[in-house]
Amino acid sequence: MTKDDQMPFEAALVARAGPLEALLRQLLDERPHSGEIARPEHLMAAMRHGVLNGGKRLRPFLVLESAALFSADGEAALRVAAALECVHCYSLIHDDLPAMDDDDLRRGQPTVHKAFDEATAILAGDALLTLAFDIIADEATALPAERRAALVLALARAAGAGGMVGGQTLDLEAEHIRPDEAGIIRLQAMKTGALMRFACEAGAIIAGAPPADRERLAEFGSAIGLAFQLADDLLDLTADASQMGKATGKDAAAGKATLVALHGADWARGQLNGLVDQAHALLDPYGEDAALLKEAAKFVAARNN
Amino acid sequence: MTKDDQMPFEAALVARAGPLEALLRQLLDERPHSGEIARPEHLMAAMRHGVLNGGKRLRPFLVLESAALFSADGEAALRVAAALECVHCYSLIHDDLPAMDDDDLRRGQPTVHKAFDEATAILAGDALLTLAFDIIADEATALPAERRAALVLALARAAGAGGMVGGQTLDLEAEHIRPDEAGIIRLQAMKTGALMRFACEAGAIIAGAPPADRERLAEFGSAIGLAFQLADDLLDLTADASQMGKATGKDAAAGKATLVALHGADWARGQLNGLVDQAHALLDPYGEDAALLKEAAKFVAARNN
Repeated sequence: MTKDDQMPFEAALVARAGPLEALLRQLLDERPHSGEIARPEHLMAAMRHGVLNGGKRLRPFLVLESAALFSADGEAALRVAAALECVHCYSLIHDDLPAMDDDDLRRGQPTVHKAFDEATAILAGDALLTLAFDIIADEATALPAERRAALVLALARAAGAGGMVGGQTLDLEAEHIRPDEAGIIRLQAMKTGALMRFACEAGAIIAGAPPADRERLAEFGSAIGLAFQLADDLLDLTADASQMGKATGKDAAAGKATLVALHGADWARGQLNGLVDQAHALLDPYGEDAALLKEAAKFVAARNN
Repeated sequence: MTKDDQMPFEAALVARAGPLEALLRQLLDERPHSGEIARPEHLMAAMRHGVLNGGKRLRPFLVLESAALFSADGEAALRVAAALECVHCYSLIHDDLPAMDDDDLRRGQPTVHKAFDEATAILAGDALLTLAFDIIADEATALPAERRAALVLALARAAGAGGMVGGQTLDLEAEHIRPDEAGIIRLQAMKTGALMRFACEAGAIIAGAPPADRERLAEFGSAIGLAFQLADDLLDLTADASQMGKATGKDAAAGKATLVALHGADWARGQLNGLVDQAHALLDPYGEDAALLKEAAKFVAARNN
């Protein structure tokens, strides 16, 4: 895939991000909402630092496009997209903590615990996770209560002990207990896959689409999630190779078990092509309406940053 | 209030806790629920350590009793009570972290980050918070979706940046910027009051009671929350006085601003009596049905541990 192929998709990604940024800013302002007492300025500033950081907003894009596929209400989809981004950003804030990955920088800016302090970073993450469920459950997400409840449940399952947080635990354990291939696949399906799956499934839930469509979109999200992780591992290997002049990557050097480390770059490229084909086939029933989602699958597989 | 007066209430508290403990055990087992991939044993063990720790389960009791006041479905109330306890326990796990209060022991047992490690404690807290919303939104909480969504929203508002987590942030700030009386009241209403308020309000939501009842129970919860904090601060002062042979408490020694430190023990005892009267008056319309909730208000104000 050449750079030219990616341009239209990246433009769509940027266009979709605009209204999302505006909504996130509004949701993260300091005026207390109904049922709240007051929103401490310091905490809200830390939450904004962790969210309004120039992210690509890929997960929100997937929510918005999957919702559009079923002609769902755009405003409701935007709120669900914002909620999902709050969950994604909370996970990054907590991941960056000294007790976890201990990262000082994210997107060239100090991480939340560096810009503020550790306690504030922990609380800002906690508050963002809580806010995500607030946003979805709120009647301002103008959907039947049944769908709001279904979205809360699906997001909680994707983000909790049996999803993202469980995957983060397995990832920490993998530093001590090297997982086998099945273990790596499970870890990645949880750590990065579960939220991607939710992102795509969410559109079908928002629209009240039939269960078969919901499952189809969820499968599409899982395929994208796998591709995302493979591309990431491949990037780690190849970026390192070009910088260090050798074929071993950061992950491999750190003893980190990845599918790319197990099977090599050529295998990974083959897998990525297969996953994109699989993702596209899942969307074939939707014809041209799914064009941008198909582009998203290619973008994820080909991403170089 | 004498010890004898408390016995019937404490027996009711213990009786109510039994089914709750059983449900919490079931919710925290390792079998993945629908929509989950797998639940890492290590993470689930940390979550259980933080929850199944012999707590008094006061907040769940308030949910169950307020629900009973309106003849709400007992099974649904039990699940909401369990969800609230997950939120309370997550907040204790994160509060105990080295970056926060740095406590090694809770109820005589090692805190989660001591029994496991910091990263696992952060993730166990995150997973418990997420699980709380999972429990409420699940159709197993056999309530109309409108009520499940309302409960998710009310809990998120009580627990988030404009409630408990906001209060924790203000509490950390209070070590540097000494709050005035209004600031202390606001801090306490957020840090401990918001969840107590939710606990009592929840019963009315579960039952689909009219807004006036919901507001009345919420006010009762706020009064209990204030009493809880006053009793806590008073205990700190008097426990310290008997141990140290002087009238300055731990909080005062640490320079911590509390209403008891500002106004003294006699004032605090007067306030506590006033809050109990106020709480009881709020429940007068419910007659004998509210007897145990009234006992709860006395228990909170008189508690000595």
